[in-house]
Amino acid sequence: MTAARARRAPPEPDIVPPWITLLTDFGPRDTYIGMMKGVIATIAPRAVVVDLSHGVAPQDIVDGAYLLATSYRYFPAGTIHVAVVDPGVGGTRAILAMEFGGFRFLAPDNGLLGGVLGGKAPDRLVEVKNTRYFLPRVAATFHGRDIFAPVAAHMALGAKLDELGPARAEMPKQPWPEASAVPGGVRGEVIYRDHFGNCITNIRLDENAAGTARVAGKDLPLSSHYAQAARGELVALRGSSGYLELAVREGSASERFGLDRGAGILWIPAARSG
Amino acid sequence: MTAARARRAPPEPDIVPPWITLLTDFGPRDTYIGMMKGVIATIAPRAVVVDLSHGVAPQDIVDGAYLLATSYRYFPAGTIHVAVVDPGVGGTRAILAMEFGGFRFLAPDNGLLGGVLGGKAPDRLVEVKNTRYFLPRVAATFHGRDIFAPVAAHMALGAKLDELGPARAEMPKQPWPEASAVPGGVRGEVIYRDHFGNCITNIRLDENAAGTARVAGKDLPLSSHYAQAARGELVALRGSSGYLELAVREGSASERFGLDRGAGILWIPAARSG
Amino acid sequence: MTAARARRAPPEPDIVPPWITLLTDFGPRDTYIGMMKGVIATIAPRAVVVDLSHGVAPQDIVDGAYLLATSYRYFPAGTIHVAVVDPGVGGTRAILAMEFGGFRFLAPDNGLLGGVLGGKAPDRLVEVKNTRYFLPRVAATFHGRDIFAPVAAHMALGAKLDELGPARAEMPKQPWPEASAVPGGVRGEVIYRDHFGNCITNIRLDENAAGTARVAGKDLPLSSHYAQAARGELVALRGSSGYLELAVREGSASERFGLDRGAGILWIPAARSG
Repeated sequence: MTAARARRAPPEPDIVPPWITLLTDFGPRDTYIGMMKGVIATIAPRAVVVDLSHGVAPQDIVDGAYLLATSYRYFPAGTIHVAVVDPGVGGTRAILAMEFGGFRFLAPDNGLLGGVLGGKAPDRLVEVKNTRYFLPRVAATFHGRDIFAPVAAHMALGAKLDELGPARAEMPKQPWPEASAVPGGVRGEVIYRDHFGNCITNIRLDENAAGTARVAGKDLPLSSHYAQAARGELVALRGSSGYLELAVREGSASERFGLDRGAGILWIPAARSG
Repeated sequence: MTAARARRAPPEPDIVPPWITLLTDFGPRDTYIGMMKGVIATIAPRAVVVDLSHGVAPQDIVDGAYLLATSYRYFPAGTIHVAVVDPGVGGTRAILAMEFGGFRFLAPDNGLLGGVLGGKAPDRLVEVKNTRYFLPRVAATFHGRDIFAPVAAHMALGAKLDELGPARAEMPKQPWPEASAVPGGVRGEVIYRDHFGNCITNIRLDENAAGTARVAGKDLPLSSHYAQAARGELVALRGSSGYLELAVREGSASERFGLDRGAGILWIPAARSG
Repeated sequence: MTAARARRAPPEPDIVPPWITLLTDFGPRDTYIGMMKGVIATIAPRAVVVDLSHGVAPQDIVDGAYLLATSYRYFPAGTIHVAVVDPGVGGTRAILAMEFGGFRFLAPDNGLLGGVLGGKAPDRLVEVKNTRYFLPRVAATFHGRDIFAPVAAHMALGAKLDELGPARAEMPKQPWPEASAVPGGVRGEVIYRDHFGNCITNIRLDENAAGTARVAGKDLPLSSHYAQAARGELVALRGSSGYLELAVREGSASERFGLDRGAGILWIPAARSG
């Protein structure tokens, strides 16, 4: 096999690394994430760790659940997604491991996994209890390093969900209110505000959606992209994750129009002819 | 071959990973970068992705162009540099793939690549149009995930520029004004302000440069490093990227002296004897 | 060997990557870290680089020393920890390479390594002087790229400390004041404030410690974890790195109680019976 062919050949199954993503509210200042990566490397040296984000607002489960729900499917099948936004660390909240849609997940039982499921049932769900996969000493204040990282690393090495703890029947909590049908449309709210100030709602649109968003005293017909709008003007569009989104071209919709999480919005679908 | 030798041996060409760097204005809060890495891993599992920076000021092309221009050459030959600062996403701006100086580049056609070239011609330049290398569905608001990431991954797998789209004759735009010769010296301006508050100008100096920088009402003889100055004092030096730079030892030149992008500066080279 | 077995088998010594961690005050805006990774990849393509943190407060050696001291041991044996917080760059400060506890370290001689040692002697300590391992041209303002990165990469390839420069007898500086015994207890101070606003002190506690922390006019019995406290209430606990720590459940101890680095604290151990 030539070098050129080797580069193009599909990867051999025994060489492809297992991927682990990390989503936390640990921020950029501390070494908490670095320590988790060190623990993973020590146990599973071939695992490739990818940062999903560490900028979740501190202890904000809706934020984390939204980011996980809209990102997990873009990774290779089998990827282990680890989410640690954990106000209850050291208390009695459970830790869940889940299989869903060909991916694996590890997170505290506080709603972080509910956005991924979107009301569907997990393929497999266990409560993580087998301390054999934990670090020998578990600090009550840092389960990320002492439980989540080593358990994820052992999952990367091949540990099955059954080995981590007992099956669990109760569904993971839902992290945000569902949008609801009302006369003439769908009532929802802003659930996430991104770095650019775009405001994403809990209203899902299909790819061919057409209609009007009523928000902040305006009726906005659905646009197809930012560049369609004049600068400074509020536009409604189907965002890259399939949710109705409010944006301002080259500006912050959130700041200019005072939109924050919880801001109400009404989606009025166009009447369909034919 | 012993283990010790294996570690020291130069890497085999078919084992060395292809490197992909990412430079964006996506910031640390969202998972946009994580999603791009997931798409790359799915297509090109052996590619190693390195973050160049995701802290480019939102939609600020000069910022991005400066960072790319001063960083790209420090990577292994063949590295694919992907820059996504893209106020025109979803509009009609083209996407460019370029070969230059042994490296490959992928960016919107908005000036991001102009700093790398510094007025020279690219070795090869195409407009990326072949949708076979895109994700099957392209969201109008997130070409980073749906076009840039998969195209870069296919480049890592061996796709040639010719396969991505038609050759392009028009040069990439220049992102910042050139410094200009004036009687007695060179007139330039601040084009970048770094995390430490150092202000970097568009005036290139060679390694043996000597002379005086006139800025903020001061005449500053060129220093060789920060430690040469007293604390709090403004110094002019040849920065690590070869540009004339203004700094304050253990402080922020930008804050203390009100220097921001566009601030004018005059470089007066020393008279050369002999 | 089957594919399944290959995944579970312990890694072959000649295939396991050498790990390099980076700890700097370079922040998220610039490409300084990216350039360092490019230099490392060019020299040592198989090395895996892990970010420990780049959010050290600018030029703050105590911050950096604390983060390094509490993180280094969580990585695979032999990991090369590179710390660049370097107000004296370009001046006369030495660069140190050190072996300690099965790990390798590279940092300016300014106190960054003192926290790791905690008063113990290094296993091996040299002053890095061999310019053969530097980039050919060293910018006076960016030793991270031109010295630290290439030296670390050569260490990853197998360069021994003896090859880097002469042995050094003088101990690395201590970065923070030691806690001191006083009648009835131990007097210490806050040395680090994390992203959540938790305040970590220089008072080490063993795992079974019991007693009371006197701080900000309060006497706080040692708690075992955040969840034990009411919201908004200040608690004292043994943090995940073994130091006495002040925290507020779902809030910032630093902001609510005006605690910052240097804030005094008295630890009063419980009288032991028996």
